[in-house]
Amino acid sequence: MTAEKYLQRAFLLARQANPKAIRPNPFVGAVVVSENGEIVGEGFHQQSGEAHAEVMAIHQALDHGTKLETCTLYVTLEPCSHTGKTPPCTDLIIQHRIPNVVIGSLDPNPLVSGVRILEEHGVKVDVLIIPEIVALNDTFNINQILKRPKYVLKSAITLNGKIADNTGNSKWISNEESRNHVHQYLRTAADAILTTAKTVIHDNATMNIRIKDQPEQELNLIVFDRNLDLLKKENHQHSIFYKRNKSFIYLVTDKTGIKTALPNVDIISIPMQDGRFNLEMLHKELLARNICQVLIEAGGSLNAAMMDAKAVDEVYTFVCPRILMDNVAINQFRSSQNQTMDNAVKLQFLESMTIGEDILLKHKVIH
Amino acid sequence: MTAEKYLQRAFLLARQANPKAIRPNPFVGAVVVSENGEIVGEGFHQQSGEAHAEVMAIHQALDHGTKLETCTLYVTLEPCSHTGKTPPCTDLIIQHRIPNVVIGSLDPNPLVSGVRILEEHGVKVDVLIIPEIVALNDTFNINQILKRPKYVLKSAITLNGKIADNTGNSKWISNEESRNHVHQYLRTAADAILTTAKTVIHDNATMNIRIKDQPEQELNLIVFDRNLDLLKKENHQHSIFYKRNKSFIYLVTDKTGIKTALPNVDIISIPMQDGRFNLEMLHKELLARNICQVLIEAGGSLNAAMMDAKAVDEVYTFVCPRILMDNVAINQFRSSQNQTMDNAVKLQFLESMTIGEDILLKHKVIH
Repeated sequence: MTAEKYLQRAFLLARQANPKAIRPNPFVGAVVVSENGEIVGEGFHQQSGEAHAEVMAIHQALDHGTKLETCTLYVTLEPCSHTGKTPPCTDLIIQHRIPNVVIGSLDPNPLVSGVRILEEHGVKVDVLIIPEIVALNDTFNINQILKRPKYVLKSAITLNGKIADNTGNSKWISNEESRNHVHQYLRTAADAILTTAKTVIHDNATMNIRIKDQPEQELNLIVFDRNLDLLKKENHQHSIFYKRNKSFIYLVTDKTGIKTALPNVDIISIPMQDGRFNLEMLHKELLARNICQVLIEAGGSLNAAMMDAKAVDEVYTFVCPRILMDNVAINQFRSSQNQTMDNAVKLQFLESMTIGEDILLKHKVIH
Repeated sequence: MTAEKYLQRAFLLARQANPKAIRPNPFVGAVVVSENGEIVGEGFHQQSGEAHAEVMAIHQALDHGTKLETCTLYVTLEPCSHTGKTPPCTDLIIQHRIPNVVIGSLDPNPLVSGVRILEEHGVKVDVLIIPEIVALNDTFNINQILKRPKYVLKSAITLNGKIADNTGNSKWISNEESRNHVHQYLRTAADAILTTAKTVIHDNATMNIRIKDQPEQELNLIVFDRNLDLLKKENHQHSIFYKRNKSFIYLVTDKTGIKTALPNVDIISIPMQDGRFNLEMLHKELLARNICQVLIEAGGSLNAAMMDAKAVDEVYTFVCPRILMDNVAINQFRSSQNQTMDNAVKLQFLESMTIGEDILLKHKVIH
């Protein structure tokens, strides 16, 4: 087997993890390979605060009585060199005198300098950047580099880009199968949905995760609600106030010092800047709550505001077989600014998927 | 071989024809099969005014010395029973005492009653409607049933449904490969492009067919030009006035009695109705000129007007990796009316095609 094949095995291990169980950590897989090419230890990071992939793989190899001094360690991510909830993996590698380490992606965290430290201790390190390994940790990389959650913006549009008619009615642009896809994949992957009080009140949406033949699952909800409309008594019957055991509703407002007795409702106070919330501060508040990936499900105005603030990483659009011939129907991005073709937001096409007669297009935003 | 297989063979023959050579006729293929299942004659309609498929297949069978009295004729379309440019095919079938005829689609032309006439003469007729055979003659069927050309509306849009920025600039939303596709497939399939004087003047477009490594080809152009702006001297340098040998520019206006000395420019006078051209009259004028399939390449207003008038059969949309965050950027359909979700134009998804980072979506309009 080649180095790429061992890294591929480590990649397949890495992605077995439940992303929500490891937050805010990255996916990592590791394999220890003996002199004669046999895999003698395997592991992947499974739970935040518990063993790293390297530790598991090395311990498995030791359990087999392997002489680590002649082995190679393949690990999908640069080993950590700092003490977090667990001690640095570089120490373990050095301690067991593993002579060769092959790495599939670098850690963007500036506290991590695993490659340098290993080399300083005489370990031969090969860095083989594998794009699919880097992509697996997209959320982690965005969290580390941009110091904010990864934001995915989801809409269902008519062929001509409308998300609702001029009365605000959006039921239903997309088909049932597409709506199921949102629950099963997009909401399931997210740590929270971001929306506005207006959308919540207008649509009376539950915003949880409903998958056929499975119990309903809770999901955190971040609501831009400057005037705290959702705290008003007449709105307490809204579907988002279902009984929550572990998830929260985060109401984002610029008001300060407000408390609420509503269970599982938390108020995040953020100052306004030029009529908009200071998103830098919101990003920090969300990461502090271990919200690393956010699904934006909102109206055209919030979509445009987030895009303007360069706080959208990917755009997932269900393009549905319908045309709304109405210039005042609601646009996917409702912006009062003007933008020339040369200044248009550029996207990178990722993939398309046919769902009945809808097409789901996934794009990455090029900021 | 089963009846379906022989019809499939006839279908493959039928679609060998160049659609522009047979206009306004349908694609037709025919095979004569002997008692022992052998194909003894084949033919397809190749040129308007020349032999029909049945005639070719029967004559080929006769050339082989086949006894037609024991054969079956498989033909993709109900044989004609009226005298057009050639005598009725039903006569030939009856004359040669072919006992069995299997038909893959019915002729929507009310003058054609081939099945009835054959049966009256003791021919056993099986009608096996094959959807792909019906679809092959989509243009012919629309021409016959709706008494108008088939209209295909093509646009290149940003992900959010804009065809140009607020200055009218649309260069370039779609990529080069998509633009090549328009020439090689969409324009090549059309008998004419329909556009407006405004688009012609703004874009200075040539609107011919340019395919790599091939000489440029002419294409008829229909221009909505109420005020005959294109006849004004200052506009004579526009690219559409390239030297034409066989194609025409048709200027559509409500002015009457206007003549022009410009070569290959024809004026179609059509009255206005409620501020719009009477399209019923335009349809007739176009069919009279053997324009059976039209590609609409225009701005949002003409797109909306044609859709409103139920004069769009298919919508081909290149969805491109860009977002124009501007509410006054130009919509694919620019309509001053209001339309609720329930009244939205319904489409049937036909197919999608990835072209670089663009996606071409094809939809049929459900009127």
